[in-house]
Amino acid sequence: MMVTMAHGSGGEETEKLIREIFAARFDNPWLSGLEDAAAVPGSQRLAMTTDSFVVRPLEFPGGDLGKLAVCGTVNDLLMRGAVPKYLTAGWILEAGTDLALLERIAASMADTAAEAGVQIVAGDTKVVENVHEDGGIVINTAGVGFLREDLEVSASRIRPGDQVILSGTLGDHHAAIQSARMRLDNDICSDVALLTEPVSIMLGAGIRVHAMRDVTRGGLATILNEFARDAHLTIKLEQETIPVSPAVRNLCGILGLDPLTMGNEGKFIAVVDPADAEQALELIRGTSCGQQAAVIGKLTEWVDTDVILHTSLGGTRVVAPLTGEGLPRIC
Amino acid sequence: MMVTMAHGSGGEETEKLIREIFAARFDNPWLSGLEDAAAVPGSQRLAMTTDSFVVRPLEFPGGDLGKLAVCGTVNDLLMRGAVPKYLTAGWILEAGTDLALLERIAASMADTAAEAGVQIVAGDTKVVENVHEDGGIVINTAGVGFLREDLEVSASRIRPGDQVILSGTLGDHHAAIQSARMRLDNDICSDVALLTEPVSIMLGAGIRVHAMRDVTRGGLATILNEFARDAHLTIKLEQETIPVSPAVRNLCGILGLDPLTMGNEGKFIAVVDPADAEQALELIRGTSCGQQAAVIGKLTEWVDTDVILHTSLGGTRVVAPLTGEGLPRIC
Repeated sequence: MMVTMAHGSGGEETEKLIREIFAARFDNPWLSGLEDAAAVPGSQRLAMTTDSFVVRPLEFPGGDLGKLAVCGTVNDLLMRGAVPKYLTAGWILEAGTDLALLERIAASMADTAAEAGVQIVAGDTKVVENVHEDGGIVINTAGVGFLREDLEVSASRIRPGDQVILSGTLGDHHAAIQSARMRLDNDICSDVALLTEPVSIMLGAGIRVHAMRDVTRGGLATILNEFARDAHLTIKLEQETIPVSPAVRNLCGILGLDPLTMGNEGKFIAVVDPADAEQALELIRGTSCGQQAAVIGKLTEWVDTDVILHTSLGGTRVVAPLTGEGLPRIC
Repeated sequence: MMVTMAHGSGGEETEKLIREIFAARFDNPWLSGLEDAAAVPGSQRLAMTTDSFVVRPLEFPGGDLGKLAVCGTVNDLLMRGAVPKYLTAGWILEAGTDLALLERIAASMADTAAEAGVQIVAGDTKVVENVHEDGGIVINTAGVGFLREDLEVSASRIRPGDQVILSGTLGDHHAAIQSARMRLDNDICSDVALLTEPVSIMLGAGIRVHAMRDVTRGGLATILNEFARDAHLTIKLEQETIPVSPAVRNLCGILGLDPLTMGNEGKFIAVVDPADAEQALELIRGTSCGQQAAVIGKLTEWVDTDVILHTSLGGTRVVAPLTGEGLPRIC
């Protein structure tokens, strides 16, 4: 069974597709009315975010588009210190896409949403003409989270002396997608994961987290440059402390890739008060997705450049944000 | 200047595109931080919705993709009786898309958001490979509105005796898109419009509005079947009361189209308490987008079928929801 243009008509076939593939899996009291908009309980302060997911292949070692579409948006809310609550899901399907594939992606999305404790409260489905031989799916997720009155996590709170913690190895998602496309025979898996556990444990313990950012498209180099620029400070990194798995390091050597500009989907940077850094590191390392967390650098007053790397060989180099293509359709 | 794959990298070019084309136009205190998620003031009850807009051509008589992406999502919030507040915008750009076109669409989106009184508080930009000769843009908008504690507008509130008001002529958006694709020489314009004015005037006047739905993909026939099914009632329509413009009626005659299954983007159905119907009609007719509003039917106890039409010729026919393709990529 394939997606057909009739599935995008807004009529009977659209309704059947929504009920059978989406509503059955995302069932909750707010979505089930299938009204034009869902009515949900609110909060005094909201965090909002959106992300479209255009990755190919749709299923890859370690994850798939559905899991990615939940993790990406939930993680963005977590990075603001918010408690993720509600997602919307906009599906854009190519005519000719296998319905069994669509069902697997929807099921994965539902499972990940349940794990994250978020409800998918509104959805939309469009069908566009066939482009790829095996069809295609794009998902947009927008998310709403509740902010605590007493907590502000934002680049504007970064201070000189703050420590930079990276929650684990760099480059895994990028390396997995690239390997799948090149049909390379290796064991690299995407790190796509919810960051709920390490973030809530840190905030629950009262760690003074000044800013957080998940390491996605553009990589660590791009994020740290944004932090440094927004805070008008310099970030000094120690290369030998930055975790990269042997398999990813090996692939980078072969393909000439730099882990600093490669995207992850289950890693984040926490900029924390220096007095709390050791405890924060311990807490993150105690979680399933943070076992290889490390303090990789610190903030100083601005000295000539935004991000500096002390290399393993004893030199220094300026770390620039990613320029050029990177890996297209990585997320 | 064209969109390139580098604009989707998440690196320097992406940031430049976002700052120059989007942030400059959608400037507000919540978006300007360009954090992973925007922090915005909340409310006790929220309405949430999402819609992806895949229409082609991107500019058409009466509107464009940017205007459509705001109207569609704002109107969905209005249909729940919510006050629209915040939008997120997910842009999916084909490599090769003209940047001047992107700027026009973004400007139109910003203008329409300002008119609607909503803020675009979070965004995302992805670039996919070139498919169409002239490039392509898809926009997903998700929306949050605030619900009043004392107001519930939902299909579940529909009662026998309720009157069905249609806010204006059917089929204009569908007819305009189809005419543009076929390069027909006529004066038909899309009716894409914000429904803010008629809805707020009705609710402000205390009209007992039981349910509302904007008449988009699937057309009036599909919406009314959903209403009838959800309410377990029958809707009886009077064909001669249903407004259709002469130009659209003419096009329907030539192409064999049925206005009842054609999509609009600036019309809605209000199901109101019979005692308030006359006043509601007068209020809607006093607004710029509702001058041709009409009472087109009423609800009765269920009698054998969901939606029945009394034709202009004196007969009756069952009105079925749209089946099959409709017009692909109409919105």
